[in-house]
Amino acid sequence: MKVIVDAMGGDNAPLEILKGCALAVKELEVDIILVGDRERIESVLKENNIDLKPLEIIHTAEQIGMEDDAASILKAHKNCSMAIGLQLLAQGKGEAFVSAGNTGALTVGATFLVKRIKGIKRPAIASIMPTTKTPVLLMDCGANVDCRSEMLYQFGLMGDVYMKKIRKLASPRVALANNGTEPTKGTELVKAAYEHMQQADYQFIGNIEARQIPYGDCDVVVADGFTGNIILKMYEGVAAALLGSLKGIFYKNFKNKIAALMLKSSLDEFKAQMDYKEYGGAVLLGIKKPVVKAHGSSDARGFKNAIRQGVQFASTGVVEEIGLRASALGADSE
Amino acid sequence: MKVIVDAMGGDNAPLEILKGCALAVKELEVDIILVGDRERIESVLKENNIDLKPLEIIHTAEQIGMEDDAASILKAHKNCSMAIGLQLLAQGKGEAFVSAGNTGALTVGATFLVKRIKGIKRPAIASIMPTTKTPVLLMDCGANVDCRSEMLYQFGLMGDVYMKKIRKLASPRVALANNGTEPTKGTELVKAAYEHMQQADYQFIGNIEARQIPYGDCDVVVADGFTGNIILKMYEGVAAALLGSLKGIFYKNFKNKIAALMLKSSLDEFKAQMDYKEYGGAVLLGIKKPVVKAHGSSDARGFKNAIRQGVQFASTGVVEEIGLRASALGADSE
Repeated sequence: MKVIVDAMGGDNAPLEILKGCALAVKELEVDIILVGDRERIESVLKENNIDLKPLEIIHTAEQIGMEDDAASILKAHKNCSMAIGLQLLAQGKGEAFVSAGNTGALTVGATFLVKRIKGIKRPAIASIMPTTKTPVLLMDCGANVDCRSEMLYQFGLMGDVYMKKIRKLASPRVALANNGTEPTKGTELVKAAYEHMQQADYQFIGNIEARQIPYGDCDVVVADGFTGNIILKMYEGVAAALLGSLKGIFYKNFKNKIAALMLKSSLDEFKAQMDYKEYGGAVLLGIKKPVVKAHGSSDARGFKNAIRQGVQFASTGVVEEIGLRASALGADSE
Repeated sequence: MKVIVDAMGGDNAPLEILKGCALAVKELEVDIILVGDRERIESVLKENNIDLKPLEIIHTAEQIGMEDDAASILKAHKNCSMAIGLQLLAQGKGEAFVSAGNTGALTVGATFLVKRIKGIKRPAIASIMPTTKTPVLLMDCGANVDCRSEMLYQFGLMGDVYMKKIRKLASPRVALANNGTEPTKGTELVKAAYEHMQQADYQFIGNIEARQIPYGDCDVVVADGFTGNIILKMYEGVAAALLGSLKGIFYKNFKNKIAALMLKSSLDEFKAQMDYKEYGGAVLLGIKKPVVKAHGSSDARGFKNAIRQGVQFASTGVVEEIGLRASALGADSE
């Protein structure tokens, strides 16, 4: 399998991206096509003794920044590494595309350069989040801030397919993020989506309150992109703030340091369980080919896991199955 | 000062409510008017040797449940303890009202029985949340799921007054919860609110991403009631899930138990800092008299803190100041 990689995207590009690619080639059965500045890539590989073979680079000197306007990938930055990578994916030069760059640009680029699956109204960003039980898929995490109820309905459908194919669940429990569990709760949008999802061909288990999400009481959480983004970032923020405070306690004095040492193996286990890097990145669902968004701050291990996710995404037929399910929705959803 | 208390509201009523009232009478300079089932109250006080004097009970046998429809406080449950308490407040029989009961019913009841402050479009539920720095006020936490931008603007204004009066901040930093910090980010609602808040007579510091909220980078977080509820409950849920997992680690084996004992004093300090019970409950801002919503699961200490919050709310002139500021908004906001 060939995976196309945006060598220039993310906070730690290209070094950590290249290290991640080298790990992926070693650990997974995968070849990498790098897109980016050839000179820069070759010098970083050399300076850091990174052994990445076979080395295939598609050169472009341009790149798109984290703060650049999303739509600029189609105009001012149409020759950036992300845009070229997406074009290569559309042309079938690789089976999946992975980037740690600008999320908005990746969504716009994928939608216009790789295109939506027929029948899918909007692609969505889906992120796997750890919970105290099994991981949960949250979508949309920010591609569509203003949604209609049919879109939320389709997010549920795509999440159902992804969790069946990737995590091998027989019948994923799909829930709607809401400010209460009763069907009468929520905004006009959420109430309409609830009605719609009750007719779904997936296991819709009703509303879930945000408080229950970290306990893994469902497998897919459906939300509009604004709400999903808030959920994801509250999750990351609260966890980081608490673990940061805890770290402060462990270093506070000698007695505490000893205690922290005694707890080390248990804490490491816990940290691994809660570590989103383990799950790689987010995926764009609803696009005709597999597109993976690695975390912007990905290190080598995180990026390698995002490549693994791209391989799984491409090899399990997620895109094809979403296409079949979307076409079965009939003309009213076209 | 006299505080009116809904003796029958919340998961642990009336026992923990009555214990909380007894603590409040002892620790704060306050008299309590209890509203609820006289016979039940008197027997619980007696059985548990709770010393609550002077004992003033306004009797009503009816109560409203946590699952009852919010609007039923005006119809089917118009004689419930919460409704009677709100009427007593409107009549000036006490300076503040505290209930741990049904939040929706409290909002509807306060709006129709105590009434809105002139010029304020909608009352909002404001909650104090702990952060790694200073506490932050989040509003709205669920009173208004579908909002207009002027409402968000006014939430900022009311939060500004509350944090000035209660937490003695000279110029609270008011931020808008969003899925990015740039002014162009967010839903149509949030973009319009951003425009509006830039003209505010309070210190609007722009958008805040959910990830930064637990770090206390602002003093007031403004959101529509749906988003605010998600933020509040993600906060509680993630913190509870993480601290629960940590507890599991501390009890895992003998070595870990010893380590946990060594950390106990530091951990207790940390838990106290992160404990929302310390801050009492939420308040309803925009209502003509002080109304406090204690946490549904309040224990005696939590409820006592909610009463203390009611005393502060009533004694610092928050309602009067919101009235002045709202009237200064002029006719276009009427």
